[in-house]
Amino acid sequence: MRKELMGMLEARKDEMIQIRRYLHENPELSFKEEKTAQYIMDFYKGKDVEVQTNVGNGYGIIVTIKGGKPGKTIGLRADFDALPIVEETDVPFKSKNEGVMHACGHDGHTAYLLILADCLIQLKDQITGTIKIIHQHAEETPPGGAKSIVESGALDDLHAVFGIHLFPTNPTGDIGYRSGYSMAGRTYFKLVIQGVGGHGSTPQSANDAIVAASHFVTAVQTVISRRLNPFDVGVVTIGSFDGKGSFNVIKDSVELEGDVRYMTVETQELIDKEIHRIANGIEAMFGVECDLTYTADYPPLYNDPKITEDVVASLKSMNDQDIKQVIEFPMFSGSEDFSYYAEKIPGCFFYIGCKPKGVEKAFFNHHPKFDIDEDALLVAAKSVGQVVCGYFGID
Amino acid sequence: MRKELMGMLEARKDEMIQIRRYLHENPELSFKEEKTAQYIMDFYKGKDVEVQTNVGNGYGIIVTIKGGKPGKTIGLRADFDALPIVEETDVPFKSKNEGVMHACGHDGHTAYLLILADCLIQLKDQITGTIKIIHQHAEETPPGGAKSIVESGALDDLHAVFGIHLFPTNPTGDIGYRSGYSMAGRTYFKLVIQGVGGHGSTPQSANDAIVAASHFVTAVQTVISRRLNPFDVGVVTIGSFDGKGSFNVIKDSVELEGDVRYMTVETQELIDKEIHRIANGIEAMFGVECDLTYTADYPPLYNDPKITEDVVASLKSMNDQDIKQVIEFPMFSGSEDFSYYAEKIPGCFFYIGCKPKGVEKAFFNHHPKFDIDEDALLVAAKSVGQVVCGYFGID
Amino acid sequence: MRKELMGMLEARKDEMIQIRRYLHENPELSFKEEKTAQYIMDFYKGKDVEVQTNVGNGYGIIVTIKGGKPGKTIGLRADFDALPIVEETDVPFKSKNEGVMHACGHDGHTAYLLILADCLIQLKDQITGTIKIIHQHAEETPPGGAKSIVESGALDDLHAVFGIHLFPTNPTGDIGYRSGYSMAGRTYFKLVIQGVGGHGSTPQSANDAIVAASHFVTAVQTVISRRLNPFDVGVVTIGSFDGKGSFNVIKDSVELEGDVRYMTVETQELIDKEIHRIANGIEAMFGVECDLTYTADYPPLYNDPKITEDVVASLKSMNDQDIKQVIEFPMFSGSEDFSYYAEKIPGCFFYIGCKPKGVEKAFFNHHPKFDIDEDALLVAAKSVGQVVCGYFGID
Amino acid sequence: MRKELMGMLEARKDEMIQIRRYLHENPELSFKEEKTAQYIMDFYKGKDVEVQTNVGNGYGIIVTIKGGKPGKTIGLRADFDALPIVEETDVPFKSKNEGVMHACGHDGHTAYLLILADCLIQLKDQITGTIKIIHQHAEETPPGGAKSIVESGALDDLHAVFGIHLFPTNPTGDIGYRSGYSMAGRTYFKLVIQGVGGHGSTPQSANDAIVAASHFVTAVQTVISRRLNPFDVGVVTIGSFDGKGSFNVIKDSVELEGDVRYMTVETQELIDKEIHRIANGIEAMFGVECDLTYTADYPPLYNDPKITEDVVASLKSMNDQDIKQVIEFPMFSGSEDFSYYAEKIPGCFFYIGCKPKGVEKAFFNHHPKFDIDEDALLVAAKSVGQVVCGYFGID
Repeated sequence: MRKELMGMLEARKDEMIQIRRYLHENPELSFKEEKTAQYIMDFYKGKDVEVQTNVGNGYGIIVTIKGGKPGKTIGLRADFDALPIVEETDVPFKSKNEGVMHACGHDGHTAYLLILADCLIQLKDQITGTIKIIHQHAEETPPGGAKSIVESGALDDLHAVFGIHLFPTNPTGDIGYRSGYSMAGRTYFKLVIQGVGGHGSTPQSANDAIVAASHFVTAVQTVISRRLNPFDVGVVTIGSFDGKGSFNVIKDSVELEGDVRYMTVETQELIDKEIHRIANGIEAMFGVECDLTYTADYPPLYNDPKITEDVVASLKSMNDQDIKQVIEFPMFSGSEDFSYYAEKIPGCFFYIGCKPKGVEKAFFNHHPKFDIDEDALLVAAKSVGQVVCGYFGID
Repeated sequence: MRKELMGMLEARKDEMIQIRRYLHENPELSFKEEKTAQYIMDFYKGKDVEVQTNVGNGYGIIVTIKGGKPGKTIGLRADFDALPIVEETDVPFKSKNEGVMHACGHDGHTAYLLILADCLIQLKDQITGTIKIIHQHAEETPPGGAKSIVESGALDDLHAVFGIHLFPTNPTGDIGYRSGYSMAGRTYFKLVIQGVGGHGSTPQSANDAIVAASHFVTAVQTVISRRLNPFDVGVVTIGSFDGKGSFNVIKDSVELEGDVRYMTVETQELIDKEIHRIANGIEAMFGVECDLTYTADYPPLYNDPKITEDVVASLKSMNDQDIKQVIEFPMFSGSEDFSYYAEKIPGCFFYIGCKPKGVEKAFFNHHPKFDIDEDALLVAAKSVGQVVCGYFGID
Repeated sequence: MRKELMGMLEARKDEMIQIRRYLHENPELSFKEEKTAQYIMDFYKGKDVEVQTNVGNGYGIIVTIKGGKPGKTIGLRADFDALPIVEETDVPFKSKNEGVMHACGHDGHTAYLLILADCLIQLKDQITGTIKIIHQHAEETPPGGAKSIVESGALDDLHAVFGIHLFPTNPTGDIGYRSGYSMAGRTYFKLVIQGVGGHGSTPQSANDAIVAASHFVTAVQTVISRRLNPFDVGVVTIGSFDGKGSFNVIKDSVELEGDVRYMTVETQELIDKEIHRIANGIEAMFGVECDLTYTADYPPLYNDPKITEDVVASLKSMNDQDIKQVIEFPMFSGSEDFSYYAEKIPGCFFYIGCKPKGVEKAFFNHHPKFDIDEDALLVAAKSVGQVVCGYFGID
Repeated sequence: MRKELMGMLEARKDEMIQIRRYLHENPELSFKEEKTAQYIMDFYKGKDVEVQTNVGNGYGIIVTIKGGKPGKTIGLRADFDALPIVEETDVPFKSKNEGVMHACGHDGHTAYLLILADCLIQLKDQITGTIKIIHQHAEETPPGGAKSIVESGALDDLHAVFGIHLFPTNPTGDIGYRSGYSMAGRTYFKLVIQGVGGHGSTPQSANDAIVAASHFVTAVQTVISRRLNPFDVGVVTIGSFDGKGSFNVIKDSVELEGDVRYMTVETQELIDKEIHRIANGIEAMFGVECDLTYTADYPPLYNDPKITEDVVASLKSMNDQDIKQVIEFPMFSGSEDFSYYAEKIPGCFFYIGCKPKGVEKAFFNHHPKFDIDEDALLVAAKSVGQVVCGYFGID
C-alpha cells in the first residue's frame, strides 16, 4: 500500500497546489474561518467518513477514517487559520481579503492533508486501525483551537498524533525533527502597580509607582540570571511600561506587560513562581498594591522520544527522490498549539523545508512577503503518509 | 509722610477691592494678558509718571515715579496673570472667562499696588529717590515674565526690589518673612533613551530601553540619598515613564520626564551635574543613547538678609492696628519668578496672610475654590508702603 | 544674688581651669570613670548637699541643692567621660592615660559646673527652689548614661533641665542656641541576609545573598529620596557590606551594617518603618531570610521653645563683658544623650564658643588635637548661672 | 593490528591497575608533580621513542612514537596532577600524601595511556604515521599545563588530538561523547570600585562605594537576562563582595570577585564586552574609579564535529564485550584545559564511564570519596586504541 499511496500523492500534486492557492486567496482570521471550514466540509461531502464539525471553541473539523481492520487510532493535524497581515507578495493568488494573509503556511498544511486524507480514504480497507484527520481552527491566536479540541474529548481514543509545519529556512526535500522539548511555551503577564499620586515637590505624601515598577524591572532580571539552570532556556521580557504622566506629578499607577518563554514545563513553573514572588516582594517593599495577571498561552511542545525515533527511522528509510534529507533541528523559540495534543497523546511534530527556489534567504513565517515552494506540499503529504504506514506497520 | 500715606491707603481700601474684583472677573492667561495690561495702562493715564509698556517678553509695564529729591531707586513688583483653572467659588465677581481663574491672588497683588502707586505719585515730592512700579505679566508659566524684564535692562538702576504674595495659610494681619533662600527653584527634564527594538524571544538582537530606563530611575534616587547634604533640600521626581508598547516586543525607546526642586543654587548645580552624570552612565552601561533635555525654570528665591532684616524691623515697628504680627515663615517648595529680580538686585519678597474670615482651613493657592479675605489688600498696601518709607528713611 | 554669683564665678575662674586640667590629664572611658566620679564626690565632701552616687547604669552622681525657699526644681547637667583617642596636643596637662583623651570638652563641662555648683551652694538661701546638679557618666558610648538616669526616677521632680557643650567653631564669648530640634538622633542597624550557597556554575541550586543584598542597598535609597519630606533631614548609610567569599562560590550569607540619622522623632519613626518594610520586601522578593537588628541610639535633641526663648532672652539681657553675642545655630548632625532628659523634661541645651585664641579654624570635637580656650569655662559658668537666676526670677 | 592491540591491552589490564594504584598512593599537586614525572620518564626508559621532558610551564612530557610508515601525526593526552583534597576513601592504596588526592581520575588517565603507549610502541612498525603521547602536568590549576604545551610548539605538527576523562556518572562500558562545544570555558574577574570615604552623617562629602557596587551587581544581571541568546549558556556569579567596614563610616572602596561560565567563544566574548561596559558605566554614573581585572581561564572545549563523528562511528563498530554503549552526553558546566589543544588542533575528548560496581550514585569527581571501577581503565585503553586504529585506517 505504501508504494500505491506515494504514487497517488504524486498524481495529485497539482490538486494540492490548487487547493493551497484557493485557500491563500481566501484567508480568514483565527476563530473566523467560516468559509474555510465550509470549503473543507464540502471536500469531504459524499466520502465514506464520519465528519464532526464545530469541534472545540470554533470551526474545528474532525474526519474519522475507519480502516478495514481494527487497530490503534492516530491523529493527523493541520491548522487552517490566517494572520492579520497585509500581504506584500506578487503571487497571482494573492489574498483577496485585505489585511488578512496566509503568512504562516497553514494554507499548505490544509491542502496537503486534504489530498492525503482522500487517498487514505480510498485505501482504507488496507489500514489496520483508525485515522482521525484534525482540521484545526485558530492556531495563531491564544487560547487557540487545539486546547478546546483536546478538552472536547474527541481525541480521547488517540494512541498517537502527528503534525507538520512548513519552514522556509530549509530547501524543499529537507525534513527537520527534534525529540523531546522542541518549541517554546509562552506566558503573557500584566502587572498593575498601584501607588499613591502626589505633587512632585512632596514625595512623602505620595507613593511613587514608577520607582516601584523600576525596581520590579531590575529585580525580575534575576529570574533568568540567577534562578534558571544555565543549560535551560528562558526569557522574561517586559515589553510595555505604561507610566506616562505629567513631569511634575508623582505617578499613582503603572501598568507593565510582559512575555515569558520557556522550553520545558519545569522552566515554566519556575518562572511563574519567581515572578509572583517578586511581585509580592515589590508590594511588601514599597507598600504599593501589585495586581498580577499571569496567563500561560501554549505550553512547550514535547515530541515523544520513542514516537520521534520511529518517525525519523521511517523517514530515513524512504528512499524517495522527493525526500532529500532528514535532519535534527535546534529548538525554536516560537510557539505552536500542537503542544496541547502532545501533552496528552504521544506525538511528533516535524518540519518540512519549503524555501522558494532560487532564493538565498527566504522571508520567514509571519513576514508580509512570506512565500513557499509549492513542491513542498508533496513532501509533506509523502512524509506524513510514510509515517502513517510506518505506524500501522503497513508496507 | 508715612502717617499720611497710611491714611490715604485706608481711605482707598474699597477702591482696591473694586479693582481686585474687576480683575478677578476678567482673568487672562500668562502671556495673553492684553486687556489686563490695557486696564493698568488706563489707570496711569494722565498721571505724572513715565510708563513703559510691553517690557520683556510680554505685556510687562514699568511705571517710574521720580521722587522730589534725588536718591536711590527701588522696585515694587506685582504680577497680573491668571491660571487655566475652572473657578468653583460662588463669589458674585466669579470669572467670566470660563476655564481661566485668578486662583493665585495676582488680582489682589495688582489691585493693592495700583492704589499704593497712585498714593506714592501724589506724595512723590517727599520721596528722596525713585520708585519703579513693576506690573509683571506671566508669572505662572515658565519662562515667566520676570527674567525677560530683568534682561531688558529696565531695572538696571535698581538698588532694591520688593514684592509680596497673598497666602491664605494665615489670617489677615499676619505678615510672613524668611531671610535667605525661601522658595524653591525648579527644573524640568526629559530623558529619551534609545535602545533597539526586537522580539520578546530574542533579547540578544535587541537592546531593551525599558531595562535601561528602570536602572536610570533606581540610580537617580542616589542623587538625593547620597549626593545631597542632608540639611539641604532637593527633590527629583520622574513623573512620566512613557514606555507603552506591546507585551512581547522589546521596547526600542522610552521617554522619561521629571521635575527637580531645590532651595539653593548650589543644590541646583549639584543635581544638574549628577543627573547628567547618571544619564551618561546609563549610556555607557547599556550601550543605549541618552538624549537629556534639562531646562531650569525659576531659580530658588533668595531674600537678601540685610534688606530682609530691615524690612522685618520696619514692619515690626509699625504699631498699626491692621498689622497683627510679623513672623518667620518656613521655606516653601513652591516657585516664584520674583527670584530673577532677587538674583540681580538685593530684595525681599514677603507673605501677606489673607485667610477668609470664619474659615478653619482655607483652600490653598491654585485650588478652584481659592479665595481671599479682601481686607488683606490694605495690609499689603500698608506694609509695602511702610517698607518704602523705611527704605528711604522717610517718617 | 545674680551679680554676687557672677563675681564669685569670676573669682574662681582659675580654679575651674585647674580642675579642668586635672580631669584632662586623667581621662577615663565611658562606664569606667571610677576615679573621675571619686574626684567629684570628694569635691562635694562636707558641703551641705545631698549626694546620690552610682545613679543609673554607671558612675552617675546627682547633687541636690535645696534652696532657702520652696519652689520649682531644675537640673544642670555636665558629662564627665572621655574618648578612646590618642591625644596629639602639646599641652602640659596632656592625657596620662595613653589612648584615652578628653577630646570632647567634658573635662571643661565638669570643671565649670563644679565651681558653679559650689557657688550656688553658698548662695542657696536666696534660691527659691531646688537645683539638681547632674554629673553624668558615659555620654560618648550608647546606650549612654542619660537614659538610665532618667529611668532611675531621680529626676522625676524636675521642671526644667539645662546643659551646655563647648564648641570650638566659635570664639569665646559666643553663645549658640537653637529652639526645637537641634541635634540628630541616630540608629544602628544590622541586616543579615541568609540565602543558600552553591557553586558559581549552578545558580539554580543556590540563592545568591549578594544579589539580594545589593537590591536592598539600591531600594533603601528610596527611603530618603521618596519617603522623606524634602524639608526634613534624614540619612541612611550602609557602612559595611560584608560579603567576602570565593569568586566562584555563590555566597550564602551577607551582613550589612548601617547608620541612620534624623532630626525629629517623626523622621526616626518613618525611616524605622521603611527600613523594616524593605527588609521584609527583600525576604518576600528573593526568598532569603532577613534578620534585622534595629537599635535606636540617642534620640534627636529637642529644646523646648518656651524654655529656649527664656534662656535666650535672659542671656541677651546679661550685659556682661564675657558674653559677646547670643546667636542662633544651625542644626547639627551630631548626637547627644542630653536628648533623653529633654524628652521628659522641658529643657535647653546650648553651645559655648571656645575656639583657642589666635587660631583660624580650630580642631573640632573628637579630633586628637582638639583644644579649648579655657576662658570659655567662665562663660559657661556665667551663662548657666544666669539661666538659673532667670528661671527662678532672681535678680 | 587492531585485534592484536586489543589482545595486548587485555593482557596488561592488571598492570594498568597497579600503575593507577601507585599513582593514587603518591599524588602530587599541579606544577609540583616532580616524582610523578620521574615515574613516567622511568617507564619509557630504554624504549625506542623520543622523550621530551619539562615541556611547557611544568613537568610536561611528550613521547613521540614514529610509525613504520610515514603519515599523519596525532596526539593522545593524559593529565597527571592531583588535587588539594584530604582523601576520605578506605582503599588500601589511599593517598600517602596527606591533603593531596587523585580525586579526578588523572591517575587512571595516566595508567591506561602508559600501557597503551607501550603497546603502540611494540606495534609501531604497522603504524602509518606518528603518535605523540602527551603526559600533561597541571590540569587542575589555571593557567594549566595545556596552554603552555601548545605554545611550546611541540604539537605544531599534529593533525588530530584525542583525550578522555573518567566519569563515574555512568557504569563501566559506557562511552560518552558530544560534538561541538561540550565543556564550559570560564573567566575570573575582580572589580575594585574606588569611591571616597566619609562619615555616615555627611554623604555629600563622600562617594559611597557600596552603593556603586550594588548597582554593578544589579546591572550585571542583565548580561545574562538580556544580552545572551536564550539558547546559549552563560553564567555570571559575583561570589565575593568585600565591603566590610564600620557601620557609620561611608565605605571608600569595595572589591568584587566573580566567575563567568560559557559554552562558546562567542558567549565568552559577549560577556567580556558587556561586563567591561557595565564597569565603565558605573564609573561614569557614580564618578567612582573602576579597576577591572578580567582573566580568561580555560576556553570552552570544542570537539571537532568531523573528528567526533569518526570517533563515534569507530567506537560503535567495535563489537567488543568491554564497550557496552556509545551515547551522546549533555554539555557539562565543568572546564578542562584539553580545550587549548582543541582550539588549535581538530580533536575529540570523550568520557569513559567508571561508576564503581554496586553503587547507585557514585561520588563525583573532586569529592573526597571519589572512586572508580578499575575495569574502566581497559575500556579507556581499548577505546583510544580503537580511535588510533580508526584514524590511521588500520584494521
